[in-house]
Formats: sequence, structure tokens, C-alpha cells
Amino acid sequence: MQERTEVSELGEFGLIHHLTKNIELQNASSILGVGDDAAVIDHFGKQTVVTTDLLLEGVHFDLTYTPLKHLGYKSVIANLSDIYAMNAMPTQITVSIGLSNRMSVEAIDEFYEGVYQACENYGVDLIGGDTASSLKGFVISITALGEITADKVVKRNTARKGDILCCSGDLGAAYIGLLFLEREKKIFMETPGVQPDLEGEAYVIGRLLKPEARKNIIEFFEEANIIPTSMMDISDGLSSEILHICEKSGVGCMLYEERIPILEDTKNAAFKFQIDPTACALSGGEDYELLFTIRQDDYEKLKDHPGISVIGHMTEAEKGAKILTKGGNLHELTAQGWNAFKKH
Amino acid sequence: MQERTEVSELGEFGLIHHLTKNIELQNASSILGVGDDAAVIDHFGKQTVVTTDLLLEGVHFDLTYTPLKHLGYKSVIANLSDIYAMNAMPTQITVSIGLSNRMSVEAIDEFYEGVYQACENYGVDLIGGDTASSLKGFVISITALGEITADKVVKRNTARKGDILCCSGDLGAAYIGLLFLEREKKIFMETPGVQPDLEGEAYVIGRLLKPEARKNIIEFFEEANIIPTSMMDISDGLSSEILHICEKSGVGCMLYEERIPILEDTKNAAFKFQIDPTACALSGGEDYELLFTIRQDDYEKLKDHPGISVIGHMTEAEKGAKILTKGGNLHELTAQGWNAFKKH
Repeated sequence: MQERTEVSELGEFGLIHHLTKNIELQNASSILGVGDDAAVIDHFGKQTVVTTDLLLEGVHFDLTYTPLKHLGYKSVIANLSDIYAMNAMPTQITVSIGLSNRMSVEAIDEFYEGVYQACENYGVDLIGGDTASSLKGFVISITALGEITADKVVKRNTARKGDILCCSGDLGAAYIGLLFLEREKKIFMETPGVQPDLEGEAYVIGRLLKPEARKNIIEFFEEANIIPTSMMDISDGLSSEILHICEKSGVGCMLYEERIPILEDTKNAAFKFQIDPTACALSGGEDYELLFTIRQDDYEKLKDHPGISVIGHMTEAEKGAKILTKGGNLHELTAQGWNAFKKH
Repeated sequence: MQERTEVSELGEFGLIHHLTKNIELQNASSILGVGDDAAVIDHFGKQTVVTTDLLLEGVHFDLTYTPLKHLGYKSVIANLSDIYAMNAMPTQITVSIGLSNRMSVEAIDEFYEGVYQACENYGVDLIGGDTASSLKGFVISITALGEITADKVVKRNTARKGDILCCSGDLGAAYIGLLFLEREKKIFMETPGVQPDLEGEAYVIGRLLKPEARKNIIEFFEEANIIPTSMMDISDGLSSEILHICEKSGVGCMLYEERIPILEDTKNAAFKFQIDPTACALSGGEDYELLFTIRQDDYEKLKDHPGISVIGHMTEAEKGAKILTKGGNLHELTAQGWNAFKKH
């Protein structure tokens, strides 16, 4: 009898590792392959950065409460965020879509309006793609390309003991936004016609439906002459991303709960669900902020930047990844990605 | 009331045109965008060529008779073929998959075995991708990147009157292969347990399930110092591709039926279905051969190449796109793509 291993036994990272562990790059131009936010291809000093995302209806988005224009915008943003997370500037995207026959041309136009809006806002070109008819649900596949000078690529595996841990923007809001929309969807399903009660939740819902990518932070790095020692984008929750950098870089870290940037709007929204806002930042997802480490020497350069928070520092691997809570307790940081959290 | 246009009213090409007609490229490096086999990005003389394909279970492939290893191989080949069709050499691919939970890790491994086999055979690197769980069927999205020196890019819109029309390999076989497999599937559905009768059809079925891309032709162009005046790959049937080059280039053409390369195996298989082999070449699909035009001066360089057939020549636009049949009749060449044909 043939062996059968369930994908769930491996998990997503396990599966990716399983599928890619034997890759040996053949082309001299392939500088960096699987395992970071994006791959890197060399062109005589200038390098091309490539990343790709596959989004499926019912898995990654719910058209019940996601306007198509926002979906188009967000699908592009998710890819641009990966390019910025390499310290690169995105230049081109390809967009492939599988269309269910429920979708009219007007609906597709709305989706592309969002795609083009993101292209315009971030200065990238849509250069290609593929369209197919899908028997079952809307399918979106986007690939983004970016440019960078060779010596400025920032990977995930190069954080060092003593480096300062930072993140951009604020965290946890998109997850609360999702909770609100899921709640209203449930109510609507049970009592059709009821108008959604999202009064006062514009910020958290906006963060979920129309996120932005952190172009401004990458531009600031360039101006301030900072090259982070490691970086990735925060799409699966802060703790999962920090653990990823620790593991890849072979270091530990100390994270200070009180330093995690969470806005009042997010806190108030979280309390309505009786959820700890910190848990949302640690284990929520889709923030599309940047998590990065810098050399201590660079601290002065960014300490006054209003869009950057210093949240901790890297330690030796033996000390593990820890969080010091507001109450003064030291806990092990655990990986609770987006999916794990949703099961609670 | 909101307007609703059905996608079917536009057709695939109409939809692509509709969605991309307002694109203005912003980055100086974006040399060529939507509308050819692949996009082109400049890097100081060397250019990057990008193409992407989205493949959906039940639309593009049928797992009833498609071994996963072959599917992996073919999915890569379809993309490499687009890169070769730009006269470029593929260097990297990204592979994203949406997995239905029916699929075991062993099944996914089989798929990737095919992907890696194609990578090895064609010297390309798998550098990234995305995995997602799909609620409904297997989803494959592949993006391929390639390299080329700036002055060697071959597009679709640059054929000129008087150019010689050529194609590589032989045509029509994959379509007959599909007919056989669909027939056997139908029989099996009606009478489970019946063994498939594919005796003697190895060639046509092999062409469908495990196509190759025409790397050797592009290498020959380099050696023989030929730069075609236009080129595209034959994936939707010869007539549709010829009409595409004619329209984009603003020329007409004369195609000679007797020159269309169709193998004996294909002819014999077609006769079993009482189908005209020429119709299969004109309107079948998935041949992954190259269709190209050359200057008359280059004719001597390729006339003895066993893998290239001269099938016609380009005329002025006013003369239209014509086919001279073996019987000596002159017909208008009509666009019958793969999909149109299947409906008959």
C-alpha cells in the first residue's frame, strides 16, 4: 500500500521545507532562492527581487464583506510588502486571475481599479498576467519584481546578538477588523436585512480591507543611510515573525510588551471582544508592517522617527525568545500564527 | 440598476484588452508590458523576460488521466515555452500551488518531481513560490523569468511583408491525444474497471501529457546567427497564432496546407476519430512549438534544419490571411482556438 502523509502533519513551513530542501541553484544569476520574503536575481550589480502570492476565495478572502476594489488593492500590497521587506523598491507586477462565471466584467473592473490604484500609488507597472475561467471561486495570483543594489539586500537570517529590534507603524488592528466583519456576517446570515453595526470601527476595518505597504520606511532607510541587519514583513503576527528571524539568524531576543505599538482605536475595539490587544498584535495577522533589526550604532538615526518603534533587542540563542510583560513577568514567546489564533 | 456584462461577451482576448488598455508603464526598466508571450525588463543592456500562467483543475487539466509528475513537468514547460518565444533563455521560475485536502504529501511530491525534472532538463532554478490550501481543486500558478541581450528580443508585432513563415517540430498531436484520453475516460466512467485501449497512441498521448519546449531552436538561432522578425509559441492552434501575428504586425499571409508538419502517427490517430489532421494542427492546441517569421536572406541558414518547416510567407495586409489547400483551393484562415474547437 502506498504511504499517505497528510499535509496537515507537516504544516505550511514544513511542507515548503519538504518540497524545497533539495534545490541546488544552477544559474549564476540566482543569488537567493526559496526561504525569504522574495528571491534575488543578479544583473551585474543591480539585483532583481521576485515574490509571488496565491489568493483563493474562501481561504484568503471573503467576498461577502470584501469590496472587490479593496481586494485588488490589497492583493498588490501584500506582494509589494514582501519586496520592501528585502529593502528593495518594487518596479513591476504580473496579475493572473481565475474568474468564476458569477463575476461580471463590471466586477472584474472593480478589482482592477484597486490593482491600478495600488500600481499608481507605489509606482509599479502591471506588465503581464493570465486570465482563466475558474469553476469554483475567484483565484488571484500576483508576482512582484523589484530592484536593489547588490550590497543593500536585507535577509531574514542575518540578525546578530545585540542588534535592536524595531517595527514600523502599529499592530493588531487588521485582526480586530476581521473579527468585526466576521461577527456582522454571522448576524446578517442569521437575520438577513440587518444593517451592519460597524460604528466607530473605521480604523481597524480599514487596516484589514485596505492596508498599505511601508514604502516610506524603505525610503527613510535610504535617506538615513541605514541598512537593517535583518528584515521581514509582518503578515502572520509579530511573534511568529520574530521567532522566524531568531531561528534563521541563530539568535534569541527580548521583546518588551509595553513597547509594542498598538493604537487606542485598536485597544478599544479589542476590549469590545474581550480580547487582549497584545495578543492581537502577537498572533493576529495582515498588518503589513516591517519587522527589522539594526546595529546599535544606527539607533540615533531612527529613534525620533514617528513611524518606527523600538520593541526589543536580540540576544544569544541560548537565552531563547522572550517577552517581558507589562506586569514584569518573563514568558517564552510562542509561535501563534494567524491560523493557529483563529482556531481558539 | 447596475450594468452587467458577461465575460463571455468579451472573450479572453477582449477581456485582457479591456483590462489593460489604459496601462502606462512608469518604470524606465519596463520595456515591454502586456500583449506578447512575456514582458521585458531592462537591466543595462541585459533584459529580463517575465511570463506567468494560471492552471486550474477541471479547466486546464483533468487529474483523472493526468499523472501528477507529468502535470508538474508540463506546467513548467508551458511557461518556458513563452520565454523561448521571446528568443530568450529561461533562468528562474516561481511555483505557487493551492492544495485541495484530497492531496497527500506523496501526491504533491510527485507533482514537484515533474517540476524539478523540467528545471533540470532546461537549466532553470526554482527560486520561490507560495503554498495555500484550496477548498476546491488543485491550483497551479507559475511565473518564469529569462534573460536576453537587448537587441535580440523577438516580439509578435514585427513581421514584415515578404518574410518567410516557419514553425518548429510537428503539430496537431496533443489535440488527438486529448481526444483519446477523453474517450477512454468516458468509457471508464460508464463501465468502471475497463482497461484503457491506448494501444499504438503513445506518440499523441505523450505529446499531450509530456510536451517539451523548443530550447534547441533558440540555441540554433544563436549559432546560425538568425534573429526571427517575429515569433510566438503555438499553444492555441496554428491558425489562431498566425492570425495573431498578422493582426499585431499589420500584414497578411499565405499558408500552404501541404507544408504543415504533421507526423504519420498523428494522421493515423486522427483518422480513427474521422477528423482531418490539418484541422487538428490549425485548431488544436498545446503543441508548444514555435511559430516565427524570418527575412528571406536567412532562408539558406535554416532550410536544411530537420526540426524546422517553412509553411508560408507574409503578404500585404490587404491580401488577408489565406490558406492554400492541398486541393488547390484558397480559403480565408479563421481563428478557431482550442476552446472553440472543443465545442464542436
